[in-house]
Amino acid sequence: MTLPKLQIACDHSDLPSALADIKAVGDIVDILEVGTVLLLQVGDEAIKCFRALYPDKLIVADPKCADAGGTVAANIRKAGADYMTCICSATVATMKAAAKEIDQVQVELYGDWTYEHAQAWLDAGIDQAIYHQSRDALLAGETWGDKDLNKVKKLIDMGFKVSVTGGLDVDTLDLFKGVNVYTFITGRGITQAENPAKAAQDFQDKIKELWG
Amino acid sequence: MTLPKLQIACDHSDLPSALADIKAVGDIVDILEVGTVLLLQVGDEAIKCFRALYPDKLIVADPKCADAGGTVAANIRKAGADYMTCICSATVATMKAAAKEIDQVQVELYGDWTYEHAQAWLDAGIDQAIYHQSRDALLAGETWGDKDLNKVKKLIDMGFKVSVTGGLDVDTLDLFKGVNVYTFITGRGITQAENPAKAAQDFQDKIKELWG
Repeated sequence: MTLPKLQIACDHSDLPSALADIKAVGDIVDILEVGTVLLLQVGDEAIKCFRALYPDKLIVADPKCADAGGTVAANIRKAGADYMTCICSATVATMKAAAKEIDQVQVELYGDWTYEHAQAWLDAGIDQAIYHQSRDALLAGETWGDKDLNKVKKLIDMGFKVSVTGGLDVDTLDLFKGVNVYTFITGRGITQAENPAKAAQDFQDKIKELWG
Repeated sequence: MTLPKLQIACDHSDLPSALADIKAVGDIVDILEVGTVLLLQVGDEAIKCFRALYPDKLIVADPKCADAGGTVAANIRKAGADYMTCICSATVATMKAAAKEIDQVQVELYGDWTYEHAQAWLDAGIDQAIYHQSRDALLAGETWGDKDLNKVKKLIDMGFKVSVTGGLDVDTLDLFKGVNVYTFITGRGITQAENPAKAAQDFQDKIKELWG
């Protein structure tokens, strides 16, 4: 089983605090994410700064693109990102337009998507998906459970590289033992820890313990 | 029947060209939209510039928010926008969190939303929706038809204020005669006209002719 990657999501509302956080953990994590909130506040300057600080790191931009996939993807690629996200309710045409302009498109799973939709994404050559607990659902008291795990497993069986995110901490990773997760994405689980570098290393150690 | 409003969508990839376009038509249209592409490229600076140029105009920001509704809405309100969009696949919790922080939330209808979802939005106090022809669908040859009109009418009957957008030109408005559309949103239909101010005025004249 391949070792799942660790991705730090920067959903900061300002650039300086995002840069400080990635400087603290950028050498430990595998992927740097320019989160939606940060993109909406700062624009492509955020991607450019991440790329300038980490020329060789995998960088994901998270616009949750719903339309104008070609334009959004071309802009994001020019700024220096490798991957970008589309929302699951985007049309397949939008996802394909994006995929032409950037290395990889990841489908963000929110709301009532179906496996029929998922198969259509695969058929269009889009084979990365992000399974979420939404931040607002977590705030409303929901948590990870078998319902989520079964969906993640089914998507992997279909042929997706599945990233998972939403309220993850080191202990939550145990839930995924034996499941071929592509990437664990965490934001506050690392950035709001007392020692973010240690928190990131704890995630990596746990990943090696469970999947190594 | 109330006169539908006219909204100019600025989906530019850079701020200067967006500002030039709204300067040309800002006094003619009713609503200025900071489009998704512009937000992702420039961040909240775009909203601040629109607000600085038009202190009294209704301004909509179009992040197509899928998560972290409270944070995104608070940021957008602080920058000076009155309304913002959420994508239809966002959870109701996300939409409600956004609606607490900003004057109005508009649900962007993409993909396989249902009237059951729509009723849940109404029940949560969200009564604005945006009916789209996606840009990528239009590029793939789709166009406005009865299928779209019937959905727009049904949403209005349910109690939504419905904005429509996607490849609209002055002649397309005839299709909507007798339908209580809240807002017509157009971008290139105005900005890429030879004379954008005239194009905007033509839209307004046609709206008065059909709904006045």
